[in-house]
Amino acid sequence: MSSDGDELVFLPLGGSGEIGMNLNAYGFGPPDERKWIVVDIGVTFGREDQVPGVELVLPDPSYLEELREDILGIVLTHAHEDHIGALGWLWPRLKAPVYATPFTAALVREKLREQGLLEKVPLTEIPLKGGLTLGPFEIEFVTLTHSIPEPNGLAIRTPLGLVWHTGDWKIDPDPLIGETTDEAKLRAMAEEGVLAMVCDSTNVFVEGAAGSEADVREKLTDVIGRCTGKVAVTAFASNVARVETALYAARAAGRTPCLVGRSMHRIYNAAKGVGLLQDAPAIIDEDDAVDLAPENVLYLCTGSQGEPRAALSRIARGEHRNVVLRDGDTVIFSSRVIPGNESAIHDLYNHLLERGVDVITADDHFIHVSGHPARDELKQMYQWARPRIAVPVHGEKRHIREHMKLALELQVPEALAPNNGDLIRLAPGPAAVIDEVPAGRLYVDGASVVHAEDEALRDRRRLAAEGAVNLSLVLNAKNTLIGGPTASVRGLPGEDEEEMELAIEQLEDAARGAFSKLNQGDREDDDAVEGALVRAVRKAAERIWRKRPLVDVTVMRI
Amino acid sequence: MSSDGDELVFLPLGGSGEIGMNLNAYGFGPPDERKWIVVDIGVTFGREDQVPGVELVLPDPSYLEELREDILGIVLTHAHEDHIGALGWLWPRLKAPVYATPFTAALVREKLREQGLLEKVPLTEIPLKGGLTLGPFEIEFVTLTHSIPEPNGLAIRTPLGLVWHTGDWKIDPDPLIGETTDEAKLRAMAEEGVLAMVCDSTNVFVEGAAGSEADVREKLTDVIGRCTGKVAVTAFASNVARVETALYAARAAGRTPCLVGRSMHRIYNAAKGVGLLQDAPAIIDEDDAVDLAPENVLYLCTGSQGEPRAALSRIARGEHRNVVLRDGDTVIFSSRVIPGNESAIHDLYNHLLERGVDVITADDHFIHVSGHPARDELKQMYQWARPRIAVPVHGEKRHIREHMKLALELQVPEALAPNNGDLIRLAPGPAAVIDEVPAGRLYVDGASVVHAEDEALRDRRRLAAEGAVNLSLVLNAKNTLIGGPTASVRGLPGEDEEEMELAIEQLEDAARGAFSKLNQGDREDDDAVEGALVRAVRKAAERIWRKRPLVDVTVMRI
Repeated sequence: MSSDGDELVFLPLGGSGEIGMNLNAYGFGPPDERKWIVVDIGVTFGREDQVPGVELVLPDPSYLEELREDILGIVLTHAHEDHIGALGWLWPRLKAPVYATPFTAALVREKLREQGLLEKVPLTEIPLKGGLTLGPFEIEFVTLTHSIPEPNGLAIRTPLGLVWHTGDWKIDPDPLIGETTDEAKLRAMAEEGVLAMVCDSTNVFVEGAAGSEADVREKLTDVIGRCTGKVAVTAFASNVARVETALYAARAAGRTPCLVGRSMHRIYNAAKGVGLLQDAPAIIDEDDAVDLAPENVLYLCTGSQGEPRAALSRIARGEHRNVVLRDGDTVIFSSRVIPGNESAIHDLYNHLLERGVDVITADDHFIHVSGHPARDELKQMYQWARPRIAVPVHGEKRHIREHMKLALELQVPEALAPNNGDLIRLAPGPAAVIDEVPAGRLYVDGASVVHAEDEALRDRRRLAAEGAVNLSLVLNAKNTLIGGPTASVRGLPGEDEEEMELAIEQLEDAARGAFSKLNQGDREDDDAVEGALVRAVRKAAERIWRKRPLVDVTVMRI
Repeated sequence: MSSDGDELVFLPLGGSGEIGMNLNAYGFGPPDERKWIVVDIGVTFGREDQVPGVELVLPDPSYLEELREDILGIVLTHAHEDHIGALGWLWPRLKAPVYATPFTAALVREKLREQGLLEKVPLTEIPLKGGLTLGPFEIEFVTLTHSIPEPNGLAIRTPLGLVWHTGDWKIDPDPLIGETTDEAKLRAMAEEGVLAMVCDSTNVFVEGAAGSEADVREKLTDVIGRCTGKVAVTAFASNVARVETALYAARAAGRTPCLVGRSMHRIYNAAKGVGLLQDAPAIIDEDDAVDLAPENVLYLCTGSQGEPRAALSRIARGEHRNVVLRDGDTVIFSSRVIPGNESAIHDLYNHLLERGVDVITADDHFIHVSGHPARDELKQMYQWARPRIAVPVHGEKRHIREHMKLALELQVPEALAPNNGDLIRLAPGPAAVIDEVPAGRLYVDGASVVHAEDEALRDRRRLAAEGAVNLSLVLNAKNTLIGGPTASVRGLPGEDEEEMELAIEQLEDAARGAFSKLNQGDREDDDAVEGALVRAVRKAAERIWRKRPLVDVTVMRI
């Protein structure tokens, strides 16, 4: 099957500090004739402190883009945004057919429809436990458990061995929706021989096991049952089992559930569409929920991460059209704090508490479980799959390193700690990084997809910190100043109008002074005029404000 | 002593989400003749995601500024920046004499010297356990323990009762530097009768007790002793006991200590100046430390919070002139993660790990203790002081609320959960909020101190997210367009130069079109011209980029 010169390689491409998280690829063949499959194609969310105005961060697929003729398919493991969210933005660069199980496919279709790509992207639904063959890759979907319906690992068989790509997983003995982990399949794979396991590292620092959705159902039902006043529950909308729990708990407490927030509705509809949530109670519209007595309503809201535009933040600020919470009401966070969101979430707690609303979190009661494997689950997976090579992915460098150490402790013969962009040869021979390829970030900025290092973003950071000065002047054919210089400023402080006028005069004086020192030759040259005036005005601004604004000079000639 | 109409009031003024943290005031007298003392005058550090370019956040003292004739003094409890850091910026608005114990006074003096205020601000040193009388306020400094030398609570005696203002504290049975908590004094105050206790809420969610600096000394010495290669320890410079621990541990491990980072040197010198660190080993300059063998050096660095310009971040990025860490070296974080800094600190860990440096944190070993009281210590303090009224401060709303609940559980008769700006009457009668006064934030922006809602900051946020378009045009006396419109853009993305030129042409076309539709009357009016062109250009920009830039139009008339 395998001919001389064939290699099996793995390429993690992240869009963030996390490694191998948003986009992965496998290649097979001799170096100059490799065929590729892409596994997942997701986003990370922009940290506003890094790039204001940017809401989505994408992995830079430029390496794969150049060899797109050799990409046989894009295979999606599950429907979380960090695994599918970049498809609409990056598919036009890769143009390969897409494969996903039904629930994932339903959410992908809706996403493609919104971006006007539905007719263009060939999307094939693969049944749960199904498979497909793409050139040298035989791919089998293996049922796991996670925090979303239809989480799949991929058993990827090649002439040089079997790679077990776990995707995101945990071991939930009672996931409520979907089957339990396909342990028999994992044991069978081990018998067959697993060359390499590419595995989730998110919770490698967490002892024990993640815990079960079934336990959360029991506790959340209990907590909601003891509430008086209105209740709002916030959870990740994509966790359909959790959504079902909230809906069931509402019924048990004599409350009518009401969905608040766009993605709640989106996921609810997708779940219904694939036959889930059949026994859940009917939901009520926001407009109608207003008429319910406080003890008869349960709001299920987006915004557990303190996202400023999400339902819960708007409610906490008193800006929501239909949902008003006050003294005696309760907000239940059936969620975790995603690192980086601590401040936003604490602000959200504080705003709710200021209204007299009680806040209940997973610190108070067992009302959330993670979707990722803690250490005991990782150990179990290594015992099941018994890979020859451990390739930790889906974590920051500190997680990857810890996971590598754990794998070596568990007697896995080889383990790597990859970086994004490392081209890793898995076979033949010992696993090794054989090349490094570009693995930067792209940002979605309005309608544009730009490189992280784009000048526009650099300028915006500078504008944010330092402000701007604009200066215009008019020169005639003899290079005589016949209008201006006229300065205007943005983002620079002034005590009052008078102080600001004085500052602007100083800037204009500085520009006039600099112009007067230019000789005729320089005055003919726009670049020379601009350069001299920019320097003079920046210096004046530093003197006035102790800031270094961006200075733009427009030379008009008539 | 007290005449009819006298009231004792407390006013917490925070500069942040934390309440009663950075600036507090006490007033005594009839409402229209109150005399005031200010307790502490500190900063919070700007969250860069909120206001780019702003490094310091100050409490807005405008209420106190208006009655500054009646402010008898500014009393400082201890030298942490969140208690003294605003003095240089706000003293010119309050102009009251300042009182502090020697170590605090030494750091304040240096700060005032840097800001050119040393000669202007009357600063009186109060000995430890000393006191002073300011009008109706008899103030006694009470020795506590915290994470800095000379932490004082204030016993404030007035004709209407004794207020026990704790400042920041813990109960450290062996603080290494300074005396232990003055328990006898606290018990004596209880006998005398404590009207109100205004108390630190930082760690109200933490069970147990903070733990002792002495235990950290033992463990840190042990951890450092087992390191091979270079060692860098990062800790808060102001924790002189911890600095001493690192210096002693270096000596025990045969390492010469080297201070890296400006505030390390500043605090080290201030500590030496008041007679601390006398037995510590000599330190070596950065330049000289380069010549030491890896196993013979210990760097003591600033930057435990991932501050991008601090020593440790520069080392982690490989940008430090003298300190290079690599495979086999160790960085020890003898510190905690301050909420809001999680992402920056995790990035710092990841950068160090990428260089092969081992990272040891307080999660791995007992190498940090908090300076604030956990629940058992709070309970102990309430047992010692037995106040009639509990006024929790120094925490977010969620801490304040929890602390209030705890106080009521401990059978304190009255407890409040104040907001910044609440004017609270402590006596006579039951404690109550009797007024709300302005309590916003000020930002230090370059040389200016601006209000949080300042237009300049609003514009900068907009510039950061949306970019800018500038447009200039020249009109003659007949209002005919004789130059421009010339557009330039900042912070808006373009695939290449050609695309950008095309975009600029579209903006100029939009402006030209809008101008052509104006009648003669409008063309005479700069505001009308600007208004029409701004609208047209913004619309064009939205079409091109799906962004809403700030548009500035300059009309030049010749």
